[in-house]
Amino acid sequence: MEKNVVLVDHRELRQMLTELFETADMPRSDAAFHADCLVDTSLWGIDSHGVMRAPAYYARMRNGAIHVQPHMRFVRGNKALRVMDADAAAGFIAGRAAMEEAIKLARLHGVGAVGVVNSNHFGAGALYARMAAKEGMIGINMTNVLPLVIAQGASKPVVGNNPLAIAIPTYGPFPFCLDIAFSKVAGGKITLAIKKKEKIPMDWATDDQGRPTDDPEKAHLGFLQPMGDHKGLGLAQVVDILCGVITGGVFSHQMKSMYAYPQDPSLTGHFMMALDLDEIMDRDELQKRMAEYYRRLKETPMWDPNRQIMMPGEIEYQRETQRRAAGVPVPIKTYEELMQLKREQGLRAPLTPLEQGEE
Amino acid sequence: MEKNVVLVDHRELRQMLTELFETADMPRSDAAFHADCLVDTSLWGIDSHGVMRAPAYYARMRNGAIHVQPHMRFVRGNKALRVMDADAAAGFIAGRAAMEEAIKLARLHGVGAVGVVNSNHFGAGALYARMAAKEGMIGINMTNVLPLVIAQGASKPVVGNNPLAIAIPTYGPFPFCLDIAFSKVAGGKITLAIKKKEKIPMDWATDDQGRPTDDPEKAHLGFLQPMGDHKGLGLAQVVDILCGVITGGVFSHQMKSMYAYPQDPSLTGHFMMALDLDEIMDRDELQKRMAEYYRRLKETPMWDPNRQIMMPGEIEYQRETQRRAAGVPVPIKTYEELMQLKREQGLRAPLTPLEQGEE
Repeated sequence: MEKNVVLVDHRELRQMLTELFETADMPRSDAAFHADCLVDTSLWGIDSHGVMRAPAYYARMRNGAIHVQPHMRFVRGNKALRVMDADAAAGFIAGRAAMEEAIKLARLHGVGAVGVVNSNHFGAGALYARMAAKEGMIGINMTNVLPLVIAQGASKPVVGNNPLAIAIPTYGPFPFCLDIAFSKVAGGKITLAIKKKEKIPMDWATDDQGRPTDDPEKAHLGFLQPMGDHKGLGLAQVVDILCGVITGGVFSHQMKSMYAYPQDPSLTGHFMMALDLDEIMDRDELQKRMAEYYRRLKETPMWDPNRQIMMPGEIEYQRETQRRAAGVPVPIKTYEELMQLKREQGLRAPLTPLEQGEE
Repeated sequence: MEKNVVLVDHRELRQMLTELFETADMPRSDAAFHADCLVDTSLWGIDSHGVMRAPAYYARMRNGAIHVQPHMRFVRGNKALRVMDADAAAGFIAGRAAMEEAIKLARLHGVGAVGVVNSNHFGAGALYARMAAKEGMIGINMTNVLPLVIAQGASKPVVGNNPLAIAIPTYGPFPFCLDIAFSKVAGGKITLAIKKKEKIPMDWATDDQGRPTDDPEKAHLGFLQPMGDHKGLGLAQVVDILCGVITGGVFSHQMKSMYAYPQDPSLTGHFMMALDLDEIMDRDELQKRMAEYYRRLKETPMWDPNRQIMMPGEIEYQRETQRRAAGVPVPIKTYEELMQLKREQGLRAPLTPLEQGEE
């Protein structure tokens, strides 16, 4: 068990965060959804995008960077391709509305696509892709963020480490769910190397001049290298164009980071799609075929007994099972921030530290 | 100028290949389209998927692995998401039909998606994505191929080096066009290292047991590593599922390589999408915004004077401009095969070697 986390029951976290967001005048159903998003993300083990970020989102709700009662409306398109202006809503609330619309359009047309402008950080993309999978649809979604990924030989990043999430229904214990960004590694790996005082491979990052470095301290001040060079870079560019150019939103360096501009809406764009598989295949047949896909994958022979083949979404499923039982690990710093907010706002929901166990 | 290629005028190549495919009883319009696909691909500099492959495709037309007069028909779906059975058509002919349908559906619904089963190798994915871009639409397409990409620690590959192509209209000299597969590098780089007697980085490939190797001879008998490890692997899996699982087609090891099974249809699957941007943005506005995107990209400061920032599709545009003027470089071996076919089939179209120049 790591000493720097407190284990908390996921139901208590849901309740406490719902109450917290309500004190920022967010309607109860939105507050509960926002809370569930953060807790589910932590259950899946994507800690960097989960409960840890609640205090920052809350501060932005309070200072008006996030509009808690936004007037979201569709501003472009009349068929199965539409664009929504999120009016600086919480990214989670905008993301839900956009994917709900994409699902509705897909039910009607077979496929639905919704771009979003003027939104905020929406957390883990898997949240919205999985909404579609629950409806028997393929869910695809992406979002653009401030440039951080660099091209070879450049002194400045050209594109954000824009994530893409794709979920495919299996009608089994968990959906196929890929949720990735296009840098070679996540920034968290660089922070970890700093802590461990280790060098990093030369193809992970650059210094602040864009020159590849194996020094994590320099990399921390610099930029990330894309996976597969021009390939990862190009995919991140596609995301920026879909979220920010064709929607009438902002792209590239026009965005505002929620950390650099805590008081301002970040102008984030999203793009979501749903493909209604009920149109082309019975659920029984799809279930059988996805199970066959999974079976073949898991039968892959391994020369390394320490590794195991996983389908995308499987590790999240394992972590969720474990954390539902043992509690969600909340960093002590976050736990203390939440306890202070609880006191300040007079929240009733408990946030009981569970008996410590194996992480 | 490389000594192992012959420069040939692209118009002569188009004419000669059209006549050639007609001798296999392919209808003239299909033969001309198939020929144009190969020549355009070579013009873009994607030589591995261009004219070089003409003799192999021709042999497959003659032996019946490719049906030259297929009965292609839609077998699943009634709305904007459909599946076509290609009846073992040439992949190029199936790919054109599928993207034409996706474009038609997108004009009607805003978005269109078409899966294809029972097809053959369709060459460079850019061909079909660009069809959509010419209509003012985003074109997305992918295809599945026999497993060649390996997971860490595995002894056998789990997924093909499945390509994805995405084109976005710019209304400028060339579209944004990304056409990539998800291995760390293309197999051609390993062949090149063998020729140059150089070692390769440990993260490019594995030997035939799945163990990472820096020996290109061993790598040549082995498998490719995915870019970004689980990220590239997951993306290739998405392509396999979209092309082969949800369509009712074949996936994973069920496919038949055109080289291992020259007599058999390869059972290839494709998946194509078109998003009609006319639905959400005037062409003038889109042109301005894509030009702005391009301008910002090109203004990126560089510390390495030997590198230049390119937008995906730009290098293909430069090569096409150069090769339209100077001729298409055809490997001598391919040139001799084509000349022999020309004699055997009594084709009238010339295939004149141009004055040799700088490649």
